[in-house]
Amino acid sequence: MSEESGGGVSPPGDHNELLRAAVRYAAAASPFYRERFARLGIDAAAFRGVEDLPGLPLTTRGDIERSNWDFLAAGRRAVREIVSTTGTTGEPLFFAMTAADIERLAENERRSFERMGLGEGDVVHLAVTMDSLFIAGLAYHSGLARLGAAAVRCGPKSPLRHLELLRSLRPAAVVAVPSFLVHMASEARRLGIAVEGLVPKALLIGETVRNEDFGSNRLGVLVEEAWGCETFSTYGITEAQTAFTECAEHRGFHAHPDFVHVEVVDDEGRVLGPGEPGELVLTTLGVEGMPLVRYRTGDMSFIVEGHCPCGNRALRIGPVIGRRGQKLKVKGTTVYPPALENALLRVSGVVNFQIEARSAADGSDRVLVRVGSERKDYAFADELRSTLRAVLRVTPDIVIMSPPEVEALLCLDGRRKKATFVDKREKKRPEGGTP
Amino acid sequence: MSEESGGGVSPPGDHNELLRAAVRYAAAASPFYRERFARLGIDAAAFRGVEDLPGLPLTTRGDIERSNWDFLAAGRRAVREIVSTTGTTGEPLFFAMTAADIERLAENERRSFERMGLGEGDVVHLAVTMDSLFIAGLAYHSGLARLGAAAVRCGPKSPLRHLELLRSLRPAAVVAVPSFLVHMASEARRLGIAVEGLVPKALLIGETVRNEDFGSNRLGVLVEEAWGCETFSTYGITEAQTAFTECAEHRGFHAHPDFVHVEVVDDEGRVLGPGEPGELVLTTLGVEGMPLVRYRTGDMSFIVEGHCPCGNRALRIGPVIGRRGQKLKVKGTTVYPPALENALLRVSGVVNFQIEARSAADGSDRVLVRVGSERKDYAFADELRSTLRAVLRVTPDIVIMSPPEVEALLCLDGRRKKATFVDKREKKRPEGGTP
Repeated sequence: MSEESGGGVSPPGDHNELLRAAVRYAAAASPFYRERFARLGIDAAAFRGVEDLPGLPLTTRGDIERSNWDFLAAGRRAVREIVSTTGTTGEPLFFAMTAADIERLAENERRSFERMGLGEGDVVHLAVTMDSLFIAGLAYHSGLARLGAAAVRCGPKSPLRHLELLRSLRPAAVVAVPSFLVHMASEARRLGIAVEGLVPKALLIGETVRNEDFGSNRLGVLVEEAWGCETFSTYGITEAQTAFTECAEHRGFHAHPDFVHVEVVDDEGRVLGPGEPGELVLTTLGVEGMPLVRYRTGDMSFIVEGHCPCGNRALRIGPVIGRRGQKLKVKGTTVYPPALENALLRVSGVVNFQIEARSAADGSDRVLVRVGSERKDYAFADELRSTLRAVLRVTPDIVIMSPPEVEALLCLDGRRKKATFVDKREKKRPEGGTP
Repeated sequence: MSEESGGGVSPPGDHNELLRAAVRYAAAASPFYRERFARLGIDAAAFRGVEDLPGLPLTTRGDIERSNWDFLAAGRRAVREIVSTTGTTGEPLFFAMTAADIERLAENERRSFERMGLGEGDVVHLAVTMDSLFIAGLAYHSGLARLGAAAVRCGPKSPLRHLELLRSLRPAAVVAVPSFLVHMASEARRLGIAVEGLVPKALLIGETVRNEDFGSNRLGVLVEEAWGCETFSTYGITEAQTAFTECAEHRGFHAHPDFVHVEVVDDEGRVLGPGEPGELVLTTLGVEGMPLVRYRTGDMSFIVEGHCPCGNRALRIGPVIGRRGQKLKVKGTTVYPPALENALLRVSGVVNFQIEARSAADGSDRVLVRVGSERKDYAFADELRSTLRAVLRVTPDIVIMSPPEVEALLCLDGRRKKATFVDKREKKRPEGGTP
């Protein structure tokens, strides 16, 4: 049934059949799509597959914010779990899942763990929460059950508590946010606890640890050096109830062609080819509760050309290079904040930072970087300038401050996620919507 | 198969058969019991059932602390989940569960939810965590899945976050610690949010909300009055992977005779009859990972006489009246700290308190109660004295302090649970062990 069984390929016919079924189901069962398709005169029965997809409207985050429960295609009695987005980029969105949706989620993650070389009886330490209506916690836990591995639901605890458990239970792998693993390693050093070799493998979520050429970025290298472990990057989207994960070749994130259809589009919603960076647009396959057709994720990435050396011929995507609304255009160069963040992490002495974008008079973006550091020497300022110039082509404004001053800015307004990027540009981009 | 199907009774023969199987399995597969039974010359093959149980040794918490992994009866490859005790009364103990153990746990909780009148599609808000290797979080979540209800994994969040979710999703029930629900209601009042009628039912865990006559104690009344909801009390033990829950008659906590064998014993380990208060001793039935034979829970309760008006004829236990080591003997009267706590909560003006036990010269216990209150009048002191005298038969030493002063004592040493009872008596009680 999938590209996993026997290492074969999901025939394009099957995938197209699933796509047709998904579009017809959404049109029939989801009040939101029924109404929208009717209004636009779209006949889902005539939908043939991939070739007709560009004729269907894109779905935005705003659509779900405005009409959350109109997306519910299954009966309320069929709901088994209610999950939500974190709400970092707006109001939280609710997603109701059926028993089959939870199985789909579990199978998605089972394959990810299998790709990491994990199997029956392996102990896996979960350093991410299963609370907060968080879909990923459910995905990892149910995926491990389906794999036959043993879950250790630690959740967000102090570094010391994690370290005690890791040393007691010796897991084969850990699931964690990479910057937390870096923090944990530094706490372990302070406490005189050796962590190198403590955990053989790490599934890293929530932050990008790869460059566009698939090599580890600074954050990935920091995890690998501190823990001496093999890292597997993953990218997941609550709304699409889907995650993409690396295999041991680390050459991009594998999609599950029976669970999701992937497109990459430009600012005008035109479908782009492999290698061309644009916004990821996902259509869920086999989702019963709240299916999505052509959902704009807001995440910028690209489809990887060619096949993975692992033999799996399913589509792969590259790492997320940024958020759509956060694209910077500086004197003709296009760049996303994560590229600047990654460059900054490479400069020794950088403790923290905040990147701020403003509008210049000529319509281009101006970038101000506040760097927190104890270093005040010219060599440091020079290195910062040349490092950032290599990414931006021009030198941004740089202010060096004390790390606590920067920390205060990062945590302003009691934000849940630190504000490493602040956008003070004049708003001009529409949210997106139907092309 | 169980007392639930068709509302019938589990025939004693079945229960005895399960007990025989459990003892033989432990003797054969658990290194701890194999060794202990061999040392004591116990032949598990000759074990006939309930009548032979007093001939088997009791298992203590200390046994597991000393030989945690010797209790593992299943192969390591069969482990699917590792849970642990909270460690409030010692080092955390680990329990490894197999897939069948998780099903047993889920079925246990499914029946509890069914007893509350919940069923398919009902939304249930979990205000307790699924992290921290906590078995109860797993039990509720997997029980809801088995019931066909919809779980909302909120976990430990701020009262406001809970209130927002309750108002958005309108659950049929909430699972929570009762004192947290009282706190949430008082926060809601402060914020001008009405909570009466917001949630029809509440499953209350972690704290006793019933008196020995099954009526609600002060804490139970506070929850019921604030929320206007029906409360269901539950008592669970990580070590036995078992929970006992009330039905809608609220006449004691039902046991699952296919999952657990219940005994109540006195200080010398002699088995007591219905109505006689003593220590709960549990033998797990059907547990594969880490089965326990005659485990001393440390919790004092009693077996309820007669049958429940609900028609279910399975054994019931009363509320937990205290911890074994915390029994107070004051001038001939036996009392447990929770009885004093409950009495104190009935006096208007009591904000917080700490109960301290010391040894008197005559061998009896002396009790000092520190009460935090803004009231300083004689009437208050009088009411405290007469309320406590009604429970203890004698008047304990009472000190009235400011609430922050008491709070500081409660949180001394950064304890995870507040120290409402402090034991400074000379140690004389052995931990228990083989009778």
